[in-house]
Amino acid sequence: MTRKAWDGRFKKQTDPIVERFSASIDVDARLAQADIEGSLAHAQMLQTCGILTDAEHEAIAGGLRELAEEFSRGEVILDPACEDIHMLIERRLTEKIGESAGKLHTGRSRNDQVALDLRLWCRDTAGLLDTRLGSLQTVLLGLAQKHAETLLPGYTHLQRAQPVTLAHHLLAYFWMFHRDRSRLADWKRRANYSPLGAAAMAGTSLPNDREMTARTLGFDGPIVNSMDAVSDRDFVAELVFSCSLTMTHLSRMAEEAVLWSTAEFGFLTLDDSVATGSSIMPQKKNPDVAELTRGKFGRVQGDLVALLSLLKALPLSYMRDLQEDKPPLFDAVDSTLACLEAMQRMLETSTFNTAAMRRAADDGFATATDLAEYLVRQGLAFRQAHEVVGKLVARCLDEGRRLDELTTDELVDAHPLLKSDSAGVLNTQASVQSRTLTGGPSPEAVHKQIEAARAALKVWES
Amino acid sequence: MTRKAWDGRFKKQTDPIVERFSASIDVDARLAQADIEGSLAHAQMLQTCGILTDAEHEAIAGGLRELAEEFSRGEVILDPACEDIHMLIERRLTEKIGESAGKLHTGRSRNDQVALDLRLWCRDTAGLLDTRLGSLQTVLLGLAQKHAETLLPGYTHLQRAQPVTLAHHLLAYFWMFHRDRSRLADWKRRANYSPLGAAAMAGTSLPNDREMTARTLGFDGPIVNSMDAVSDRDFVAELVFSCSLTMTHLSRMAEEAVLWSTAEFGFLTLDDSVATGSSIMPQKKNPDVAELTRGKFGRVQGDLVALLSLLKALPLSYMRDLQEDKPPLFDAVDSTLACLEAMQRMLETSTFNTAAMRRAADDGFATATDLAEYLVRQGLAFRQAHEVVGKLVARCLDEGRRLDELTTDELVDAHPLLKSDSAGVLNTQASVQSRTLTGGPSPEAVHKQIEAARAALKVWES
Amino acid sequence: MTRKAWDGRFKKQTDPIVERFSASIDVDARLAQADIEGSLAHAQMLQTCGILTDAEHEAIAGGLRELAEEFSRGEVILDPACEDIHMLIERRLTEKIGESAGKLHTGRSRNDQVALDLRLWCRDTAGLLDTRLGSLQTVLLGLAQKHAETLLPGYTHLQRAQPVTLAHHLLAYFWMFHRDRSRLADWKRRANYSPLGAAAMAGTSLPNDREMTARTLGFDGPIVNSMDAVSDRDFVAELVFSCSLTMTHLSRMAEEAVLWSTAEFGFLTLDDSVATGSSIMPQKKNPDVAELTRGKFGRVQGDLVALLSLLKALPLSYMRDLQEDKPPLFDAVDSTLACLEAMQRMLETSTFNTAAMRRAADDGFATATDLAEYLVRQGLAFRQAHEVVGKLVARCLDEGRRLDELTTDELVDAHPLLKSDSAGVLNTQASVQSRTLTGGPSPEAVHKQIEAARAALKVWES
Amino acid sequence: MTRKAWDGRFKKQTDPIVERFSASIDVDARLAQADIEGSLAHAQMLQTCGILTDAEHEAIAGGLRELAEEFSRGEVILDPACEDIHMLIERRLTEKIGESAGKLHTGRSRNDQVALDLRLWCRDTAGLLDTRLGSLQTVLLGLAQKHAETLLPGYTHLQRAQPVTLAHHLLAYFWMFHRDRSRLADWKRRANYSPLGAAAMAGTSLPNDREMTARTLGFDGPIVNSMDAVSDRDFVAELVFSCSLTMTHLSRMAEEAVLWSTAEFGFLTLDDSVATGSSIMPQKKNPDVAELTRGKFGRVQGDLVALLSLLKALPLSYMRDLQEDKPPLFDAVDSTLACLEAMQRMLETSTFNTAAMRRAADDGFATATDLAEYLVRQGLAFRQAHEVVGKLVARCLDEGRRLDELTTDELVDAHPLLKSDSAGVLNTQASVQSRTLTGGPSPEAVHKQIEAARAALKVWES
Repeated sequence: MTRKAWDGRFKKQTDPIVERFSASIDVDARLAQADIEGSLAHAQMLQTCGILTDAEHEAIAGGLRELAEEFSRGEVILDPACEDIHMLIERRLTEKIGESAGKLHTGRSRNDQVALDLRLWCRDTAGLLDTRLGSLQTVLLGLAQKHAETLLPGYTHLQRAQPVTLAHHLLAYFWMFHRDRSRLADWKRRANYSPLGAAAMAGTSLPNDREMTARTLGFDGPIVNSMDAVSDRDFVAELVFSCSLTMTHLSRMAEEAVLWSTAEFGFLTLDDSVATGSSIMPQKKNPDVAELTRGKFGRVQGDLVALLSLLKALPLSYMRDLQEDKPPLFDAVDSTLACLEAMQRMLETSTFNTAAMRRAADDGFATATDLAEYLVRQGLAFRQAHEVVGKLVARCLDEGRRLDELTTDELVDAHPLLKSDSAGVLNTQASVQSRTLTGGPSPEAVHKQIEAARAALKVWES
Repeated sequence: MTRKAWDGRFKKQTDPIVERFSASIDVDARLAQADIEGSLAHAQMLQTCGILTDAEHEAIAGGLRELAEEFSRGEVILDPACEDIHMLIERRLTEKIGESAGKLHTGRSRNDQVALDLRLWCRDTAGLLDTRLGSLQTVLLGLAQKHAETLLPGYTHLQRAQPVTLAHHLLAYFWMFHRDRSRLADWKRRANYSPLGAAAMAGTSLPNDREMTARTLGFDGPIVNSMDAVSDRDFVAELVFSCSLTMTHLSRMAEEAVLWSTAEFGFLTLDDSVATGSSIMPQKKNPDVAELTRGKFGRVQGDLVALLSLLKALPLSYMRDLQEDKPPLFDAVDSTLACLEAMQRMLETSTFNTAAMRRAADDGFATATDLAEYLVRQGLAFRQAHEVVGKLVARCLDEGRRLDELTTDELVDAHPLLKSDSAGVLNTQASVQSRTLTGGPSPEAVHKQIEAARAALKVWES
Repeated sequence: MTRKAWDGRFKKQTDPIVERFSASIDVDARLAQADIEGSLAHAQMLQTCGILTDAEHEAIAGGLRELAEEFSRGEVILDPACEDIHMLIERRLTEKIGESAGKLHTGRSRNDQVALDLRLWCRDTAGLLDTRLGSLQTVLLGLAQKHAETLLPGYTHLQRAQPVTLAHHLLAYFWMFHRDRSRLADWKRRANYSPLGAAAMAGTSLPNDREMTARTLGFDGPIVNSMDAVSDRDFVAELVFSCSLTMTHLSRMAEEAVLWSTAEFGFLTLDDSVATGSSIMPQKKNPDVAELTRGKFGRVQGDLVALLSLLKALPLSYMRDLQEDKPPLFDAVDSTLACLEAMQRMLETSTFNTAAMRRAADDGFATATDLAEYLVRQGLAFRQAHEVVGKLVARCLDEGRRLDELTTDELVDAHPLLKSDSAGVLNTQASVQSRTLTGGPSPEAVHKQIEAARAALKVWES
Repeated sequence: MTRKAWDGRFKKQTDPIVERFSASIDVDARLAQADIEGSLAHAQMLQTCGILTDAEHEAIAGGLRELAEEFSRGEVILDPACEDIHMLIERRLTEKIGESAGKLHTGRSRNDQVALDLRLWCRDTAGLLDTRLGSLQTVLLGLAQKHAETLLPGYTHLQRAQPVTLAHHLLAYFWMFHRDRSRLADWKRRANYSPLGAAAMAGTSLPNDREMTARTLGFDGPIVNSMDAVSDRDFVAELVFSCSLTMTHLSRMAEEAVLWSTAEFGFLTLDDSVATGSSIMPQKKNPDVAELTRGKFGRVQGDLVALLSLLKALPLSYMRDLQEDKPPLFDAVDSTLACLEAMQRMLETSTFNTAAMRRAADDGFATATDLAEYLVRQGLAFRQAHEVVGKLVARCLDEGRRLDELTTDELVDAHPLLKSDSAGVLNTQASVQSRTLTGGPSPEAVHKQIEAARAALKVWES
């Protein structure tokens, strides 16, 4: 049983069950580097404010830097007897430099310390997420450039709807991830404030230059209310929400990868290096990366729920409940980062079966709308045009024919406004090429969209 | 059974069970005005592009405006036989101006139409949320100005921790709502793009000036990918997430209102006009507004879960599942707006019992930290100082005394660095006044914080 | 503004904002019949205990019965000025029979009254859910009987795995719904206790025979702790959890309906009466029932989240937060009942395309496992057999052949244990017929399974 | 890179990113003992069916038993190169007994194997949960016996409502945990069926006596549909739902512990051994066990959400998504078990401050209802009686008096039915003693309730 930072007024040792129950070192060990970074800034400020002598500051800063390296090298043993990573670092520092280590904790409490560590960790993590999103976007953009003219059916309700280009389909995901990055950027502008100096929740009567520590740590300023500083976890919930929207996007992409690699669709062949087999069925090749990504969606959503429930109805200011913010945060971030990486790997190694896609686009009735739009160009109201073509479709279905198998004569007979050139609009390629409007699927419009995507990527890089 | 917009190829009437199951008019009727606003912009564009003659456009626009007024006056009967509000509006327009109404649907599908309506509705709603948040902030700021010198205990773990000012406590909430507003502003910058012209998901071969309709409707531009345009519901999930963080803030305030109005705390007396009684216990006066607000937190969180699950693994592009976006969206927004209004009413009519607060602040050991900080100023390391005071606290507890009942002699005896002036720091008022650091609770610091809050409010207003 | 049941000690009218905010009559009106049923039992008990005279009891019971009929006929106007349905019923009863109506509320509070009403409502609802589940099971059983020999590929990872019978596939759902019903039965045994007589939470000093009212209302007894009686909402959460598991089952079935009715799978043709078309694409026929069912899953899950969050950390005993139990409960039950009905309609009207199923079962490598098992029967360890067949599959893929296109000679060459009869096991039908083990897919095993299913249905009916 | 159980048809090694992404051994290592138990039963069946010779069976069983002991002693290194615990065990067994280990996997796939392991693990866990619940109930029952006559205010809306006994208050929790145990018992009856023999999802053509393995492993029989057997995770979701209701109960108890140990309530003094202090405030003693328990509620709820979302819309039968069932399951169970243990520790070491409770019960107006009920006994309708007392309460509040400070004369003046004996009912003790109805708070009724509780505990023990 170790001495606690607070046992002055206590007459009994903590019960071992309770000690185990309340320890967080197995979870918060990940904050070690952030904790040291914060302590270095705090120590420097204490020196400037005259609380630490130059010598004390030098000893503390030196000890902390040594410790940081020991953590980097994985040399620090996570003694479960320490309540948390902050206490472990304090104890190790004391072992290194003696009791003067105790001065580091002047005008600071674990409440503002952990709030600080968490903000630093989240800020780094948001950067990582942004990088991985950008990397996935780059892969998508590359594929779009390659497939600007590849035709496949666009789907609504998972029914073939109208032909589109594969580039167009893939770029839809590009823009989802674009929004994800913009959300992270907004998050940073909102979260990048320093809680340090809020102490337990009411500040301190000792000199404490909060502007200075905020500046040193790269924050946009100190949080303007000390009670808010220690009790706010909005930034954790908001970051996990960001993850969970990214996961909805990845889960949609994963669903399509599962569908497209079925025997029935056959649009996608996964590389052997990203698929797995079956322990019983020798022929199986399974899209596990996509399935696991889809499965991990729920996990991240669950993490978000955990965080929101955690915050429900907590009175001000710090409550120990908040210790439970870290497991869902870490889990959500780890899961999202891993899925981004694995899905990228899957995408960049897969083969798109363009012939199968084209076959599917040609088959069926995907250009029925084009025929209706032809009639509109001839002056019919859209609703009437829709009905005329609907009846032609019904007839084809009855007769087991495709729409483009109707002869020019049959078309002309069907409605006075269907002229001999009307059959031309039923061609898949013509159909796609005609949809050149802004944001449309035609190669022409897609090339513009690719330019826009490239420009967007550039902005993020700068 | 009415004719459908799509029954050309169908040979049977829709089953009544299915009709009832899939109808959404009871829910999406709220989109009527947004739908008409979007149709007006679309019609104008169709005229400019030469699809509608001037006369047709005039007839359509006139009919739509008439209809808008009928909706405003509550005169439109929501015929459940219409699938949804879009079909009802189309039918009513046809009744008014004849078959030329059918031309309005040129180059447009319900997919982009409903996406548009929803964005317009959300944009308005975000504005309303912002206004209500601002109004609540104003009430908090007013109370803060009034209570800049009112002392009460600050709590951590719901244990009295250190004395603070009531203004400081209330301003913590001000800043939570400030973040909520900044989230809404970010939301708008990200969501304010137009899906119109995406049609079913692949655009149209007919002339369609998407930039024009976007501009007319006050958007920052068209959505750059037509498949994304009809399948994206990020903006709904993100808005509901915003609501759900606001609800965590309100639930915390509500929890404190419940606590503070107990006989045990006695810090708050609710006005009779915002409390309710009991049907059996004649003495009861209950904080129902706060309780219901706390209870509604779960509802909004549930709405967020519903939306995220809805989006899980949907293949591109539009899927009918998306119809289920509206019930959770509407419920979340309605609940949040109602809670903001009711909690404001509760706050502005309640009485803060400043004497009870002061008694609680003076009682107990809330200035123990000040004594430790005194020792630090005398040169002791904080950890040692903490232990010295901890032992004094333990002794007082044993002897049933308050810390400020220790005599100067007893203090001086306890540690060589405790001088005769040390008792002074145990005074509640002195304690608060000494914490003048940025973001601290002293009246001096709080006045600066109030200035910052006032400035922040001004920025939102402009 | 109406008089409240509790305004004796209040000096101000309730603020209209608060009145609107806290009113629940638009939601709890659904409890009207349950409320009356409970009041009738309470009144009868009050008479037996001598609190009501025979004449008073007769007047009250008569008035209540009249009111019940008025509710049945939809004649009661839901005056929003009444706080809730209980107050509305009390007021209407007073209008009917005068001030003696006030005696009905002897030894009862709204706290036990609403807890009672909710239990009665839930009990009826659980019965309805059970009936609908049974009805869907009957449809599944009928289809299974029809398709005991229809072959299709069984899938894992959505890859064709091994051939099975359609009956077997459909019966998997039968057993899911069987578990759902068993969960409802358990729920009833746990929930069927009466809170009546708990009053506000502490019982009453007036005579109150709780056993009698419990018996009258068909409960298994009174709840044995009055504080638990008014604050327990486990039964609501548990019922909604049951709904939400049913919704996962329905969402899986819905997903398969969407997949199977794609052009790519082509296993299922929806009847025109349960599908819908597109407002822009004349050829579309969409599986809306399945999509909406899948979409509603999130809603019910959200309702469960709302309820659990509602209950988090509520101190004993009744808290007004609990009023928020009804919206998620009603929404979850309504959604689940509607999905059960609509999915059943979809199932019973759809056509299974058995030829397409068989083609898919024959194509590919679905009998590879049979070949491996052949080798095991010849004495090879399964792991080795798996590898032998895996290599044959790889060779076929390279050469673009199906596994059953390998000649007997090629098989025999591939491994010494592959004899000339080995090709026989690659036949789809033989493969299915060979898997006769308990719970297996062969027609023989399936007929036994159908017997078991029929027996299970019988048990529920009795 | 290790050989896979399925690499026959694969031409490339798995990508290291994908290998890491899809590995589950760090999570599913907990299933090791269950996996071995299942394999022993499977091997025995294979021998009986003639697939394994006696010698092979002996070697396999011996090897497995050795391995089980190695796991118990923590000697097995969890090589991350093994995909999962099943492959690790297979490899280790092969190292021990050679290639004949491969025969163990005859007629079995990882799909039924993991489903089996999970059921065995859950069954054990449900037993553990039940034991811990029982242990906590025993502590509650002991405290109830001790405090059958201790008076405190019962609360509604956290306002003092009517006096009750502490035993009664504590027993409310007893019955919540009673329901939790009954839910676990139901769970077991529903979940206790064996998936073994379902193989990949379609059974096997090799001899496989599913009844035998089910019996050996203590199941009530085999699951009757092989596709259901591998794809069903209802039993996981239902167990986690059980945990999450238990957590709502614990969170309520935790909330009361936090409240009761505030300076303001003062009803509860935590033992030093279960509380923690502050790193900055020397006087603090914090109810961390209760706070962490409350905080962990969200986590378990999040786990439930994760599981339900995981199951949403999964087509039959096994999908790799299901691998994600284990992290939320393990987390929910671990959290719940830990909270049960820690809260029990907190309860059994805490001191109830009965004097403070009595003071709170006497103070205020908690017997106002008794006065109203007095009037009812004199013949007044309850609604009128309520109003009479309400006005007396209002008067007392205005005059700053307690209700029991009204003189007999003042009472008699207030209403003709208030006789000279009416003051008697205002006494706290008399009030509680008068509420002897079934399930009421009077010592008399509580003693009966204790008997019922003791009987219920006995039933669980047997």
